[in-house]
Amino acid sequence: MLLSDIASSLTCVHVGDDIEITSMNNLANASQTQLSFAEHKKYSTELQKSKASAFLIPSNLVESLPKNSSYIVCDNVSISMAHATKLFAPKKIDFNAPDPIIGEGSYIDERANIENGVIVGKNCTIMAGVYLGSYVHVGDNTTIYANATVYRDCRIGSDCIIHSGTVIGADGFGFSHTATGEHIKIYQNGNVIIEDEVEIGANCAIDRAVFGSTLIKKGVKLDNFIHIAHNCEIGEYSLFVAQTGVGGSTKLGRNCVVSGQTAFTDHLDIAPFSTFTARSGVTKSIKEPRGVWSGYPLMDHREWMKVQSKIAKLVKE
Amino acid sequence: MLLSDIASSLTCVHVGDDIEITSMNNLANASQTQLSFAEHKKYSTELQKSKASAFLIPSNLVESLPKNSSYIVCDNVSISMAHATKLFAPKKIDFNAPDPIIGEGSYIDERANIENGVIVGKNCTIMAGVYLGSYVHVGDNTTIYANATVYRDCRIGSDCIIHSGTVIGADGFGFSHTATGEHIKIYQNGNVIIEDEVEIGANCAIDRAVFGSTLIKKGVKLDNFIHIAHNCEIGEYSLFVAQTGVGGSTKLGRNCVVSGQTAFTDHLDIAPFSTFTARSGVTKSIKEPRGVWSGYPLMDHREWMKVQSKIAKLVKE
Amino acid sequence: MLLSDIASSLTCVHVGDDIEITSMNNLANASQTQLSFAEHKKYSTELQKSKASAFLIPSNLVESLPKNSSYIVCDNVSISMAHATKLFAPKKIDFNAPDPIIGEGSYIDERANIENGVIVGKNCTIMAGVYLGSYVHVGDNTTIYANATVYRDCRIGSDCIIHSGTVIGADGFGFSHTATGEHIKIYQNGNVIIEDEVEIGANCAIDRAVFGSTLIKKGVKLDNFIHIAHNCEIGEYSLFVAQTGVGGSTKLGRNCVVSGQTAFTDHLDIAPFSTFTARSGVTKSIKEPRGVWSGYPLMDHREWMKVQSKIAKLVKE
Repeated sequence: MLLSDIASSLTCVHVGDDIEITSMNNLANASQTQLSFAEHKKYSTELQKSKASAFLIPSNLVESLPKNSSYIVCDNVSISMAHATKLFAPKKIDFNAPDPIIGEGSYIDERANIENGVIVGKNCTIMAGVYLGSYVHVGDNTTIYANATVYRDCRIGSDCIIHSGTVIGADGFGFSHTATGEHIKIYQNGNVIIEDEVEIGANCAIDRAVFGSTLIKKGVKLDNFIHIAHNCEIGEYSLFVAQTGVGGSTKLGRNCVVSGQTAFTDHLDIAPFSTFTARSGVTKSIKEPRGVWSGYPLMDHREWMKVQSKIAKLVKE
Repeated sequence: MLLSDIASSLTCVHVGDDIEITSMNNLANASQTQLSFAEHKKYSTELQKSKASAFLIPSNLVESLPKNSSYIVCDNVSISMAHATKLFAPKKIDFNAPDPIIGEGSYIDERANIENGVIVGKNCTIMAGVYLGSYVHVGDNTTIYANATVYRDCRIGSDCIIHSGTVIGADGFGFSHTATGEHIKIYQNGNVIIEDEVEIGANCAIDRAVFGSTLIKKGVKLDNFIHIAHNCEIGEYSLFVAQTGVGGSTKLGRNCVVSGQTAFTDHLDIAPFSTFTARSGVTKSIKEPRGVWSGYPLMDHREWMKVQSKIAKLVKE
Repeated sequence: MLLSDIASSLTCVHVGDDIEITSMNNLANASQTQLSFAEHKKYSTELQKSKASAFLIPSNLVESLPKNSSYIVCDNVSISMAHATKLFAPKKIDFNAPDPIIGEGSYIDERANIENGVIVGKNCTIMAGVYLGSYVHVGDNTTIYANATVYRDCRIGSDCIIHSGTVIGADGFGFSHTATGEHIKIYQNGNVIIEDEVEIGANCAIDRAVFGSTLIKKGVKLDNFIHIAHNCEIGEYSLFVAQTGVGGSTKLGRNCVVSGQTAFTDHLDIAPFSTFTARSGVTKSIKEPRGVWSGYPLMDHREWMKVQSKIAKLVKE
């Protein structure tokens, strides 16, 4: 889509070359054919380093643009960005995609719902009621149990097990907010990538990325009712016990152990080999690997034990 | 159904005119053709004001009845009420309803399961594996993703997005309890109404009302795994982050922001523009709008911050 | 399967008679044709009492074996046990099972997905999109709403109601862990048994047992989003409010009341008639029936009230 068309759909004008834009991305990850955006002065350094060739910006960031950038000045970048994501949203179903390709030895139940563009590897089992959206790819030896759902463009690795009721690739929870309190949808144009040897329990939900991919790395095992928000990255061989949730863009290192009902807020960075006891509430990044953590607010597990014993004493006083 | 038939099915007798009863409702909301009920003396004022024309009551409430009421005296009103709801439960599927009506430009996947009596507006997308029960109505421009479920009689507005795995209109959790510990189902004969511009994430559950409607108002956005119990009312443009739950009959005003894993008990009234930080536990109504709340038991967010810092100090002592 | 074949698949050798093994079980529950296992010295007493006729054991437990036992010595019993469970995993779908048998008066929607070997009793309603796996049995007068899933071999009683999105019989969350941090799946070869008069809300997940059965007893009522892990036993007429979770092998007595967002860790034994207020965190068994419990760590409800009032005072100091 031409930059001028984007500008016109936002009822703005563009400045600079009228380049062809293929998609959108944030400042750090944008490539040359992508449109990016910056809302505040505080992003000016990041803006200057961005590889995008076109930007949505407020007028006070024009001087911070990389050389030769094209740009669109917006009154409200957040709202304009949300509107722009809609322009790049793919069709919900691509009826013109090629027929599905199914590998040797795979069983696709005739009552499974497979859209065009799907590719399934060898020796898979795809049960009745499963939905695989347009262009979903599944590796070899993977089982997807009845009534699981995979949205378009998502990737499932080899030797995976996806249990019933699980939803992979639904939209992340992203909105821009107007001054009068309405919420403008930020279209979630990324996908989910599930690497090999991952098992996902019943009734989980792993949201697609707004840009790029939500990533579940090799050997991760999720129990039931796990919520993984958009753009998360779950490290290799991590274990999640039931009813835990991870906020948007949070990244966990390998071999984390997350006990039941634990939750992480968004944009955290969690060191590998971290262990969280039941119902931990994690609101800060963790740099030191191999810690054991508890409580909300989170603290070292031994400290938490002390707090609990002090609280117990309080009653007896 | 004649009041005498209801009485006889409860092995009781009715007193007063043998009127035709169309359905049941609570004292406050019942209309002239409805059967209502009161269990305790404390409801006598409400009973006197009720517009219902027939009641299930214990013998000690006969004198509190509105003039000219018909009534059935029950040994255990709660149990009789539960039994009576079964008499008004609609069929699970109405095979005799008219053929579905689908608006211009709507795509209904041939692998979606649409019962008779359904009406879908214009330019909707209803994907494979979706279930729309008898008499479900959907507005215009609404998308329902694969394997979502909408029970009979529910209403979905225009410009809505319902993600996969979500269940709209399952029975609310309502039972009367016998002296020996069994639970008698209170049939949930109401529905769910979802207004326009609502987005509901993956694997949510919004229960139908016991009487009347569970109501999700315009512009509400729900993340994944949101539980909304029967007879709730969620105010316009409210936002719910993942894994939150709202107990029966609780009402939130407009533009509330509810962070992850928060829960509300039942029968609360929450002022508009209230914000709840992650994992709040709300057990009391909130009258003052625009507050920020935290913790369980709930407190002002600034107070909660102080408590946490005091607890942190406790350990170091 | 012959013990020698099991040994050879584990690249071990067996000692003793080369008996025919039908399945696996833990020490306490194994019968004569089953293979059991013991990993630590601390299980030597239990090992001596076991009725299994063959065992996976480390070399230092050979002297603790019951007389005339056959056995396989393993370097890592936990890992070998996990590998052995795979040998006994039934096929995901048994295409050779007999045609389904449907009782008189039952309505099975033609868009429900019923595998061979299924038996459904009289006057049931099985809606569109429901999946009943191989050999699932359903009693009389039971309703299973659209898009619910029941895995193979599970049992649903009479007069039950299973709401949409619920998954019964997905694999329990069980793995053995290698020294380098990978997780080896323990195949969950048991099932789920749901007794009569049970109602299960929307989007619940009740996992199948690793060996034997996960058991939901008569008259239990579950709200939405309830997680019941493998090998749990939920006592008669217990009530679970939304978003609660029960860890593996935990047993609750009859008529427990479990309020919203409560969680139980694994291997607990909970006395009958116990009540848990909202968001209780239960990590210890409860011997005394009829208690009311709150908080995490769990305490007597009255004590918890005192703690909360002391904490409230803290702020004002």
